[in-house]
Amino acid sequence: MAEGRLVIGTKRYSSWSLRGWLMVHLAQLEVEEVMIPLAGGGGTQAIKAVSPNALVPYLEHRGARVWESLAIAEYCAEFKANLWPRDRTARAHARSIAAEMHAGFRGLRMAMPMNLGREFPGHGRNPDSLADIARIEAIWAEALGLHGGPFLMGGDFGLADAMYAPVVARFLTWKPELSSTSHAYVAAVRAHSLVDRWYREAAAEPAEWLLPKYENPAL
Amino acid sequence: MAEGRLVIGTKRYSSWSLRGWLMVHLAQLEVEEVMIPLAGGGGTQAIKAVSPNALVPYLEHRGARVWESLAIAEYCAEFKANLWPRDRTARAHARSIAAEMHAGFRGLRMAMPMNLGREFPGHGRNPDSLADIARIEAIWAEALGLHGGPFLMGGDFGLADAMYAPVVARFLTWKPELSSTSHAYVAAVRAHSLVDRWYREAAAEPAEWLLPKYENPAL
Repeated sequence: MAEGRLVIGTKRYSSWSLRGWLMVHLAQLEVEEVMIPLAGGGGTQAIKAVSPNALVPYLEHRGARVWESLAIAEYCAEFKANLWPRDRTARAHARSIAAEMHAGFRGLRMAMPMNLGREFPGHGRNPDSLADIARIEAIWAEALGLHGGPFLMGGDFGLADAMYAPVVARFLTWKPELSSTSHAYVAAVRAHSLVDRWYREAAAEPAEWLLPKYENPAL
Repeated sequence: MAEGRLVIGTKRYSSWSLRGWLMVHLAQLEVEEVMIPLAGGGGTQAIKAVSPNALVPYLEHRGARVWESLAIAEYCAEFKANLWPRDRTARAHARSIAAEMHAGFRGLRMAMPMNLGREFPGHGRNPDSLADIARIEAIWAEALGLHGGPFLMGGDFGLADAMYAPVVARFLTWKPELSSTSHAYVAAVRAHSLVDRWYREAAAEPAEWLLPKYENPAL
């Protein structure tokens, strides 16, 4: 019996949906999944009709209405122990890098949109996207070094990893130059069972959901 | 005896610093205040040298390093009860609107930068900034209606209010058309003792910290 619903967009493209979906599954909330295929640009009319900020993901659960990935993260953390690290200092670290992802890396997001079904090696590189990638690699290297990997805060895939999972997907598509440390983290995230399930479900989406703007890196 | 430090930028201009400073004071963390005057643009060299994301505010406290306003918000919430609402559904609401502020309203932020010492009525209005203002007014009206005001989540100034306090300051400077509900909220935030203290301390900053790009709305 579903206790609510999670509204998401096309799995092939919707990087923010991936974050919210991972969080809800990590917390094992019992919600119905509602798919609104993206129509290009930010909010489609159908998303605007349901979500307060006109964006996906949007969660309704036991009377709560939750939008914005970081708010969904905190909501989920209240239902399952250790989605944030147990140690206060590590938890502050995890939240800092999650929030940095939430507000930042616009250069990367503009130049290298998520597309789980394609590879565009060598494309998308410009000063802004490369600066963002350098900062992301520094964040990953510090977190993996401090906590021992294979995930950002140690042995368990948590909310910080959920925030960076779409970056992993972008890197797999656009293939920027990365350190060996980053490559190992990319591989660990890609191999996680929930991430793999999302990839398989994206591959099964109908062809009419394809959007030219995301399928041609020259557009 | 200080247990850490909060690094902030010029109080007259640094909207993000205001958020972090309010949060740390609401939580009554005992930290030293470190001022790095803004030099225009985002991160000055001095800020880059100290803050992991090259931005202010940046908090160090009892061994934790915390950057990004939302991470500072959650850190502070662990030290003081009720900075987020006690009710789970209201807490999810507060976090949703706080996170929406954290990542959004770029149109408003670009067109109407914070300047506590000036008034630019009638300036800064363009389709992006006006759309952001409309959404902010809807957020405020819903929260104030649900929780009864005078603050977003009811009677106490909390973390959601801290996130929107710089918007209040922008509205006081740029004076866009606002509903009576919004005007009442603006007045309530401006009158809060911590906000008023920040304004007084901003007014006492030295003239050499003034930056032409923020003092002339035509630039």
